[in-house]
Amino acid sequence: MSHELSMQEEMVEKFLDAAARGDLTMVSTLLSQVPSFINHKGYRGWTPLMLAARNGHFHLVEKLLSHGCDRFLVNSSSQRQTDVSCQRLLQGSDFDQQENYFSRETLDRMSAKRTDKVWLDAKQSHPDTIYLLFSNLSPMVSSPQDGNDGGETKLCQFKYEVVKDLLQKPATVLVFLGVEKRKNCSSSFSSSQTKGGVQDPAAWFAICTDEDEAELLKRCKQKNCSFPKMPNRDLLKLTEEEAGVVAQARSVLGWHSRYSFCPTCGSSTKLEEGGYKRSCLNLDCRSLRGVHNTCYPRVDPVVIMLVIHPDGNQCLLGRKKVFPSGMFSCLAGFIEPGETIEDAVRREVEEESGVKIGPVQYVSCQPWPMPSNLMIGCLALAISTDIRVDENEIEEARWFTRQQVIDSLFRGESPAFTAPPRQTIAHQLIKHWIGMNSNL
Amino acid sequence: MSHELSMQEEMVEKFLDAAARGDLTMVSTLLSQVPSFINHKGYRGWTPLMLAARNGHFHLVEKLLSHGCDRFLVNSSSQRQTDVSCQRLLQGSDFDQQENYFSRETLDRMSAKRTDKVWLDAKQSHPDTIYLLFSNLSPMVSSPQDGNDGGETKLCQFKYEVVKDLLQKPATVLVFLGVEKRKNCSSSFSSSQTKGGVQDPAAWFAICTDEDEAELLKRCKQKNCSFPKMPNRDLLKLTEEEAGVVAQARSVLGWHSRYSFCPTCGSSTKLEEGGYKRSCLNLDCRSLRGVHNTCYPRVDPVVIMLVIHPDGNQCLLGRKKVFPSGMFSCLAGFIEPGETIEDAVRREVEEESGVKIGPVQYVSCQPWPMPSNLMIGCLALAISTDIRVDENEIEEARWFTRQQVIDSLFRGESPAFTAPPRQTIAHQLIKHWIGMNSNL
Ligand SMILES: [Zn+2]
Ligand SMILES: [Zn+2]
Repeated sequence: MSHELSMQEEMVEKFLDAAARGDLTMVSTLLSQVPSFINHKGYRGWTPLMLAARNGHFHLVEKLLSHGCDRFLVNSSSQRQTDVSCQRLLQGSDFDQQENYFSRETLDRMSAKRTDKVWLDAKQSHPDTIYLLFSNLSPMVSSPQDGNDGGETKLCQFKYEVVKDLLQKPATVLVFLGVEKRKNCSSSFSSSQTKGGVQDPAAWFAICTDEDEAELLKRCKQKNCSFPKMPNRDLLKLTEEEAGVVAQARSVLGWHSRYSFCPTCGSSTKLEEGGYKRSCLNLDCRSLRGVHNTCYPRVDPVVIMLVIHPDGNQCLLGRKKVFPSGMFSCLAGFIEPGETIEDAVRREVEEESGVKIGPVQYVSCQPWPMPSNLMIGCLALAISTDIRVDENEIEEARWFTRQQVIDSLFRGESPAFTAPPRQTIAHQLIKHWIGMNSNL
Repeated sequence: MSHELSMQEEMVEKFLDAAARGDLTMVSTLLSQVPSFINHKGYRGWTPLMLAARNGHFHLVEKLLSHGCDRFLVNSSSQRQTDVSCQRLLQGSDFDQQENYFSRETLDRMSAKRTDKVWLDAKQSHPDTIYLLFSNLSPMVSSPQDGNDGGETKLCQFKYEVVKDLLQKPATVLVFLGVEKRKNCSSSFSSSQTKGGVQDPAAWFAICTDEDEAELLKRCKQKNCSFPKMPNRDLLKLTEEEAGVVAQARSVLGWHSRYSFCPTCGSSTKLEEGGYKRSCLNLDCRSLRGVHNTCYPRVDPVVIMLVIHPDGNQCLLGRKKVFPSGMFSCLAGFIEPGETIEDAVRREVEEESGVKIGPVQYVSCQPWPMPSNLMIGCLALAISTDIRVDENEIEEARWFTRQQVIDSLFRGESPAFTAPPRQTIAHQLIKHWIGMNSNL
């Protein structure tokens, strides 16, 4: 009897946990076993519907409502589902947040393990471990064989036995990227699996080497392998999962390639902490006393913004000389020391185009590993309209109407301009504005 | 006749422009002259009310409404004021945006002038130019004479004649900070003033020197001058205006103090572009071919977040060993290469406290010149509640109720913890959450 009770308690717990995590599959499975769970109240009177709404799992909210859950139940604070919805808690935040290319985190970085030399060594020689091979900051990839531009490029993955000779060479840089995330497992769920003896997830490393590229390519059994020479174009053909891994690996490797010497004293440095630290070899160096950013990878924050005309129906796009013919994109620039995101947006837009900016709104961001930028995407409301281009920065800037933008994004006939590729946050900002405006 | 018409046209133009810029004084002045302007339609049928609302000038919106403007007029796109309000255009954005300490931009950086050596040289020796003196990255300041902690610390300002000897010394670092912004002038307005012969605004420079501090202090006529030794505490006593200037100056000077050598080849570097570039003196260096971040000041993006309990009525705060006794604050950590703001929030919270995070919302940011961080402030919704602290990072983390937070912020009796000082974005995030919650 007490055994049965605890079984049911455990199931309820699992059900409420699944609702809180937005696990549609688990919720459906458990509901089919015990339909009454749908209105079950847990801690402080919270129903599955409230938990799902609070955490922003709107597909699950819809499913629970369609299964006939009671939307008017209140918790012990007399709140209903709509009172606790994360849309109310995080005011007006947009939870269909765009996931940008280079943004997906496929790996758990496990940064605490970077200082655990024993663990790292064991992972390095483990047969499940995956290695990516970089030359000149480009990863070895295998391309679709028909040679056309469709189809996805894939990262070539290597086992320890195939690359262990490279690990011995002094010029090789090795970076620990993390371990594969377990899919569809909550923490409580996966821990019980672990008790059953499930294997540790595979670790990933990136190797950058100056060995001959033709020789390196012979190590791979895939066809059509290469080290792409135009990262700005070629690295946009990966899957979302692999792009996220490459963003991390290329940023860290790019730092190593430029920061081999201590900027504080000019001495050589040695690589530490799984590739996330370089320490000065001059024991008298100031950089060894206290914590200094000279020892850690650099990330450069950049603002990129879609400027909206005061009439709300046009946006400002510019083109650099290096752009492909006809292409216009969002303005962008590095954030300066001592500057906020919002002021950087205002300064860059006025410097590059002469247009003055009022309110600024953050939308989303994108790591851009060329070599290690963080693109911070914003909407910016113009409060002036005259354009005076700084010709050192951009070649031309123009207001485009909403219709012109729609024609360009969706390939209307003879569009006014070519939009940047969909993998860029510029493209997504423009699309965001179009989608937003159409709701007005 | 045609002359009068163009006079009136010009006034209407000026009035609509003032409304669009939110210039309360100008709007009032012109309205008192021609009351009928209040409902005048400009380009595409836009009224002053629409222009003010679109650009987020809500004080002006209130004023126009209180003066009896017609709120139901429509423009040529059949939109009323509420349709075009920037609150709708930038969905749900919070326009009472908190201005954080270190964030105010008092100067126009005029970055285009950094490469104009003739202009910079002329400004350096100009009698209006203001110099700030730094030693060990701290600015010379004069403190309130009664010695108590109230009262504002002021930056000591110097003229060219008093510091020109320092400019000749090889160890001196000189950084051009910008020119004073003109107040209450739109671009069109100030340009007509310039025609009339108004003086150029004063330029500001920061000097960092290794001369003897006691000797340097003798150059100032203020009383109670010093170079503060605890920047984390002492630099929080400046006015908002001066704090913004110090944020910029200290970040750039901090970079110079750590990056005297080329990280790519270890050679010495020379200072260029008004203090915003260091170029390698080794002509064969790779850093001189193409554009490389090694040559430019570093800004380190950091996430700082207030974690909200799934029940919406508690928040997670942590304390580091170095904090003053009883103080708890927001969790924070550096953004890693290849990582988004949102994923950095999730990773740092889980690493430091074991709490899992769902949706993340950007709130505001703060430059923190110790030495050159950009603190990106977010709210983060927890989807788990168990705390497991990483003791390498923080000493303790705890959920505090809304009431405990209110008691601590507003100095209730025996509060549960001490909040971080009001100059920190952590303080402002906590206050933001309290204010937000009370609207639910
Ligand atoms: Zn060193
Ligand atoms: Zn060099």
